[in-house]
Amino acid sequence: MPKISSKGQAMPESPIRKLVPYAEAAKKRGTHVYHLNIGQPDIKTPEVALEAIKNNDIEILSYSHSEGSESYRTKLAGYYATRGIHVDPSEIIITTGGSEALLFTMGSICDSGDEVIIPEPFYANYNGFATASGVQVVPVISKIENNFALPPIEEFEKLITPKTKAILICNPGNPTGYLYSEEEIAKLAEIVKKHDLFLIADEVYREFTYDGKSHTSILERNDLNDHAIVVDSVSKRYSMCGARIGCMISRNKEVMSTAMKFAQARLSPPTFAQLASEAALDTPQEYFDEVIAEYVERRDLLIKELSTIEGVKAAKPQGAFYCIAELPVADAEHFAQWLLESFNIDGETVMVAPAAGFYSTPGMGMNQVRIAYVLKKENLLKAVNILKEALKVYNGA
Amino acid sequence: MPKISSKGQAMPESPIRKLVPYAEAAKKRGTHVYHLNIGQPDIKTPEVALEAIKNNDIEILSYSHSEGSESYRTKLAGYYATRGIHVDPSEIIITTGGSEALLFTMGSICDSGDEVIIPEPFYANYNGFATASGVQVVPVISKIENNFALPPIEEFEKLITPKTKAILICNPGNPTGYLYSEEEIAKLAEIVKKHDLFLIADEVYREFTYDGKSHTSILERNDLNDHAIVVDSVSKRYSMCGARIGCMISRNKEVMSTAMKFAQARLSPPTFAQLASEAALDTPQEYFDEVIAEYVERRDLLIKELSTIEGVKAAKPQGAFYCIAELPVADAEHFAQWLLESFNIDGETVMVAPAAGFYSTPGMGMNQVRIAYVLKKENLLKAVNILKEALKVYNGA
Ligand SMILES: Cc1ncc(COP(=O)(O)O)c(C=O)c1O
Ligand SMILES: Cc1ncc(COP(=O)(O)O)c(C=O)c1O
Repeated sequence: MPKISSKGQAMPESPIRKLVPYAEAAKKRGTHVYHLNIGQPDIKTPEVALEAIKNNDIEILSYSHSEGSESYRTKLAGYYATRGIHVDPSEIIITTGGSEALLFTMGSICDSGDEVIIPEPFYANYNGFATASGVQVVPVISKIENNFALPPIEEFEKLITPKTKAILICNPGNPTGYLYSEEEIAKLAEIVKKHDLFLIADEVYREFTYDGKSHTSILERNDLNDHAIVVDSVSKRYSMCGARIGCMISRNKEVMSTAMKFAQARLSPPTFAQLASEAALDTPQEYFDEVIAEYVERRDLLIKELSTIEGVKAAKPQGAFYCIAELPVADAEHFAQWLLESFNIDGETVMVAPAAGFYSTPGMGMNQVRIAYVLKKENLLKAVNILKEALKVYNGA
Repeated sequence: MPKISSKGQAMPESPIRKLVPYAEAAKKRGTHVYHLNIGQPDIKTPEVALEAIKNNDIEILSYSHSEGSESYRTKLAGYYATRGIHVDPSEIIITTGGSEALLFTMGSICDSGDEVIIPEPFYANYNGFATASGVQVVPVISKIENNFALPPIEEFEKLITPKTKAILICNPGNPTGYLYSEEEIAKLAEIVKKHDLFLIADEVYREFTYDGKSHTSILERNDLNDHAIVVDSVSKRYSMCGARIGCMISRNKEVMSTAMKFAQARLSPPTFAQLASEAALDTPQEYFDEVIAEYVERRDLLIKELSTIEGVKAAKPQGAFYCIAELPVADAEHFAQWLLESFNIDGETVMVAPAAGFYSTPGMGMNQVRIAYVLKKENLLKAVNILKEALKVYNGA
């Protein structure tokens, strides 16, 4: 039998998926599972986007341009302008989700064996894209005690080698919910300029910032024109995860013309979804205001309830819709599996994402879980209560 | 300024795209351009597929499963059964176009430096996916004199090294239009079994076979269960190129569980397009009958007209909707550019794809072009006439 590749063997399994069979088994037994483990919001997709699909008059569903439709890119540049980000449509390539933008970015700037420094914990699939691209992830540890703020610049500098090609941040962060300040972005700008590196910012949660804080894009800085590459997506912004539309943005022409070759090889991003994404740009501001108000309430509820559980420590998110919580357990993955296999209250249990999968340093995050506050408040409340009772039983056992 | 990767530098430009700026310039000058250069059919997408999109009742456009929606995979297995291909839904991963299936396949079975043998001329983007995956394409030459039939098996065996991981065929072929016979597939089966290789068949043109000939899928052979990987797509079958839905099929469980890790990293294929693709499976047989009858007429017209041009030699396609033609010119790319820049009849000209880009052996196919017969007959006739007159002028000049 012919053998699969070493790369394929090395591809990490998603930390979220590992527990899926246990969740499915629980459901088969009739247990209701509250999903705090995935970033799939329960928020409705804007009407304008759904209507654009229903009212489309396509007769031949053709390929779009490899870089995405002209009209969408033009209108998207307009959206960015309202966010203080001034880019030309030619500086945008529409991708199949932010996922593909990450893949194009790594392919365009990294060869096999090259290194990318990423503050951990980080979005677990960075590991997958890095492995697929032969890229080495070099983690720099950010700490729950500091709310997962940017590690000191010295920590980054210690890790820079001749193979380092980029620093990758996620802002606001999944799984941390941390929002980098303008000062932190300025520090990163200094270091990438000093060492001639790329700075990749995954800004897919840009709109989700709380407590009056605003988002700082790396594209607001003109001194980073050669260095900055932004990964973006409609998935979370408009609760349109299934559209599979994102984009890659850079003012570095060489990077963009290289990424275009990757884009051309795969022909084009999805056509229907581009229609929906273009229409979504007309989503009224009230939609976001409501969504954000809802997330803030959920976050506040979550943090408050978690604080009532003995031994639980949680970082207060200022953005996105995730939170890392430290639990009074030795092995959060074992606990998460146990929750699905052996625990329920009135036929209900909870699924959380063990946080170890969001670290690349072995042994880190073993007692942490990521909680996505993507459920209605009443369900969130029930879910946290189940967690509380479960911890009593688990630790008593 | 930080540098792009060597891989990015090595990424080939699509041979079709290179001439696009000249075509655009021609259009700006008011010249009408007949596009014989791209595989974008002018055939209408089946009503059932378009209606499914218009009548969708999605409120939250969520991620689908990474392997594609259960209902689509189940129904798709039913479609394959009607084609004599018996696969379980678990042996299918829905991908973002056949393009992504090619990428997952290469990633799952090849490491950097591994080799894949491909009869050339071949679909040009195989070069792109190979470069992106660090894979070496090893071409085995098929000849216009033999209608691009499978090269002798000895030719393959000469090329096999310890680094060879697979043989990749496209059946029916783009750009050749060649349809492999059952005997040719049997020969390939022998060789991949003997040398313990994978056999990848790109069968995206499966439905397009002419003259009463039928398609032989590598999945019809149970002796290839460990070896066979099929790449498929709805793009051409239902004239749904913009959907971006394809699939990867294999009975090799290790290959599929590895490919699933790549699939999970990118989360999911597009949701709307899966709806349309599932509905497209209800396309009545008459749709295909009409489409095929149309392509046969176009092919016959094209071949007949080309045969009236002095010095032109064309292989008669038995499948797909492409044809390689040898022209009485030294450099077909120069001629193609000249057609766009310097020639027109009554304000009309033609765009063809220089065939050199479909070869990976340097210097091959220099006097060949690929013609896609994706235009209505009256336009095809006009286009070939332009080609005829142009050759006179070009060669007179
Ligand atoms: C931080 C981050 N980046 C990128 C993505 C990719 O999302 P998509 O491919 O749906 O745009 C996600 C999805 O969860 C994410 O959380
Ligand atoms: C031979 C062949 N394989 C694969 C593809 C990829 O098509 P898609 O990604 O649209 O399924 C094409 C498109 O032209 C093709 O001709």
